[in-house]
Amino acid sequence: MAQTQEASKTAGKPIRCRAAVARKAGEPLEIEEITVAPPKARELRVRVLCSALCFSDIHFWRLKEPHGYYPRIFGHETVGVVESVGEGIEDVKVGDTVIPSFLAYCGECPDCTSIKSNQCSKLRFELSPYIRDGTSRFSDTKGETIYHFGYTSGFSEYTVVDITHVTKVDPAIPPSKACLLGCGVSTGVGAAWKTADIEAGTTVAIFGLGVIGLAVAEGARLRGAKTIIGVDLNPDKVEIGKKFGVTHFINPKELGGKLASEVILGMTDGLGADYCFECVGLPSLSQEAFACCRKGWGKTVILGVDKPDSKFILNSLVNNHSGKTITGVQYGGLKPNIDIAILGKRYLDKELQLDLFVTHQIKLEDINKAFKLLIEGKCLRTVIWLDRERASADGVTFDEI
Amino acid sequence: MAQTQEASKTAGKPIRCRAAVARKAGEPLEIEEITVAPPKARELRVRVLCSALCFSDIHFWRLKEPHGYYPRIFGHETVGVVESVGEGIEDVKVGDTVIPSFLAYCGECPDCTSIKSNQCSKLRFELSPYIRDGTSRFSDTKGETIYHFGYTSGFSEYTVVDITHVTKVDPAIPPSKACLLGCGVSTGVGAAWKTADIEAGTTVAIFGLGVIGLAVAEGARLRGAKTIIGVDLNPDKVEIGKKFGVTHFINPKELGGKLASEVILGMTDGLGADYCFECVGLPSLSQEAFACCRKGWGKTVILGVDKPDSKFILNSLVNNHSGKTITGVQYGGLKPNIDIAILGKRYLDKELQLDLFVTHQIKLEDINKAFKLLIEGKCLRTVIWLDRERASADGVTFDEI
Repeated sequence: MAQTQEASKTAGKPIRCRAAVARKAGEPLEIEEITVAPPKARELRVRVLCSALCFSDIHFWRLKEPHGYYPRIFGHETVGVVESVGEGIEDVKVGDTVIPSFLAYCGECPDCTSIKSNQCSKLRFELSPYIRDGTSRFSDTKGETIYHFGYTSGFSEYTVVDITHVTKVDPAIPPSKACLLGCGVSTGVGAAWKTADIEAGTTVAIFGLGVIGLAVAEGARLRGAKTIIGVDLNPDKVEIGKKFGVTHFINPKELGGKLASEVILGMTDGLGADYCFECVGLPSLSQEAFACCRKGWGKTVILGVDKPDSKFILNSLVNNHSGKTITGVQYGGLKPNIDIAILGKRYLDKELQLDLFVTHQIKLEDINKAFKLLIEGKCLRTVIWLDRERASADGVTFDEI
Repeated sequence: MAQTQEASKTAGKPIRCRAAVARKAGEPLEIEEITVAPPKARELRVRVLCSALCFSDIHFWRLKEPHGYYPRIFGHETVGVVESVGEGIEDVKVGDTVIPSFLAYCGECPDCTSIKSNQCSKLRFELSPYIRDGTSRFSDTKGETIYHFGYTSGFSEYTVVDITHVTKVDPAIPPSKACLLGCGVSTGVGAAWKTADIEAGTTVAIFGLGVIGLAVAEGARLRGAKTIIGVDLNPDKVEIGKKFGVTHFINPKELGGKLASEVILGMTDGLGADYCFECVGLPSLSQEAFACCRKGWGKTVILGVDKPDSKFILNSLVNNHSGKTITGVQYGGLKPNIDIAILGKRYLDKELQLDLFVTHQIKLEDINKAFKLLIEGKCLRTVIWLDRERASADGVTFDEI
């Protein structure tokens, strides 16, 4: 099928632009000039407006094996404008505002056609270094391949994404808020809303008050939870947590050897919290969460990404006949193609507090400082602007960090 | 409050009767004359009609520590007729047919008043050697205490149960079928019906085709599951399974080193079974069940009772973000006070095939043979008749085993 959409001037040609390239595991990114090939059939090339840094970028940037591919362009909380489209694209036009998503939507498989799953069975999520067709659109000045990440690669002025990995969003949402919907915030809000399906008046315990944990609190707050208990080692999270609805704070360092789960059981007449969320990626915290989860009906939701070889151990007899449920989901159980638009609307309706997650906005050149800030737990989301003109038009003042 | 019900002749007096007493862990039961004290306030004394032998009796009869209490009267799949009642009993009368239950129902706590839980939080299930008030109603001819089991102790001609552990049933249900509702069959049917909430047209995998596993199949059949895969080491279960709706049989011994979970993934386009049930009590089987459970929405339900110190290990990264859920329940998630009556009605309506579970009916004197038969996997349920007159009136022919 021939392309019928109005073409941009750069359509069909390679684009040279700037990107933050990870050359080696764990080493500072380099701002390089790269070449972005035009989109193939059923792909889009996107001019990236801005991308936020998520801890999963850092998690995989640190990995040498088995999922380390370098040079690579990270970044998977991204919003951009469609620059050009490959053949066979009908639903998305040049100029549309889109959010690339690491989860695919084929629209035809049993999972995509069911409301119960966000795990497309035709186009499965893999820790792939390519976009969907198994090749790269990025190369460096020497012509060598640069790998993709999470089917998104938002730390580049231009990126190419498969049509199955993209969702249109309302351009009225400021880019610095829209990009957040690509991963962490949606994961937390979605886990509270869709996976746990929190009921009003209940008790929620959140292990880890990073962005995902705070977004769980935000989702729980929107759902009318009565008690929202936050567990974190960082005392700064007390005040931050309050903004997102956290009503009680537990610092495991201040318990004199007692476990946080024991404290939570004590707060709930020995019964446990109705919903528990693990938002760090430590099996020991998953066990803690499950231990203080309400017998009879409690749900424990695992959101943290742990190391590939880690194990989660349950004591079968004690825990496994208690009526508690444990589950783990990607992206909070949300279907990107449906739910990103819903969360965007809830932001525009002034219900979902996306603004509070943005603590810093910076230029691309400062991206390594954003890594440092997040590793040190001194920020929530740092938004990295790729499109300086748009930042200027939006009146963004870059932070010096 | 004074007792206002019509009293039986034996009311208020100790009753001497026969019981099968376990004197030592793992050793044959002894048929002894025992004394059963009258019920205290809010207790009932029940003339036991018959009891079936469940594998949990064997499981706990084998345990020396930490839950071994001897001498003890086992038996927790029981039906009987109320002989006398203690003070404060209003809802149950002398002459009513009742099923004692190991799960309590206080009727007032958050769990009892919720449809989501069967785990009374006021009267919790414990591996107690007593009835609810923490004492025994049984003694031997030397006056020494005999311990209770599971708040039921049905291997005695008379037993005493707390009002919170008893459910009235329709006397039209033959006792040899009614007693089955006390544990195993209800657990399996309930897990399929309530816990997993099986949808029509789906695929179910059942690990272990003992009574619980076959009852899961029966529940899945009633729910309209399309494919019911049974996994068992015993080839005799092929034909037995068919009667309960099992459509495919896997014998792990015949797979040439392949895992049953791999076979099930192969049967389901690599996606897994929508519902998986562990019905043996082995953590390795729980892992197998979870491994072949449908990504996106699959539910794994743990029903088997494993050893107190066993561990269940999940590989976090691979399994925990897949959208699969794992849960473990007692009594299939059923609320005895509500659901036993419903299952009884479904039997009388000729939907629930209770008859097929009763493979043997025997005299109390042969109870040790029933233990042997169940350990060897050569029966489903052996019904042990305590009330010989009622057996005779019902036209029961005792099996020689």
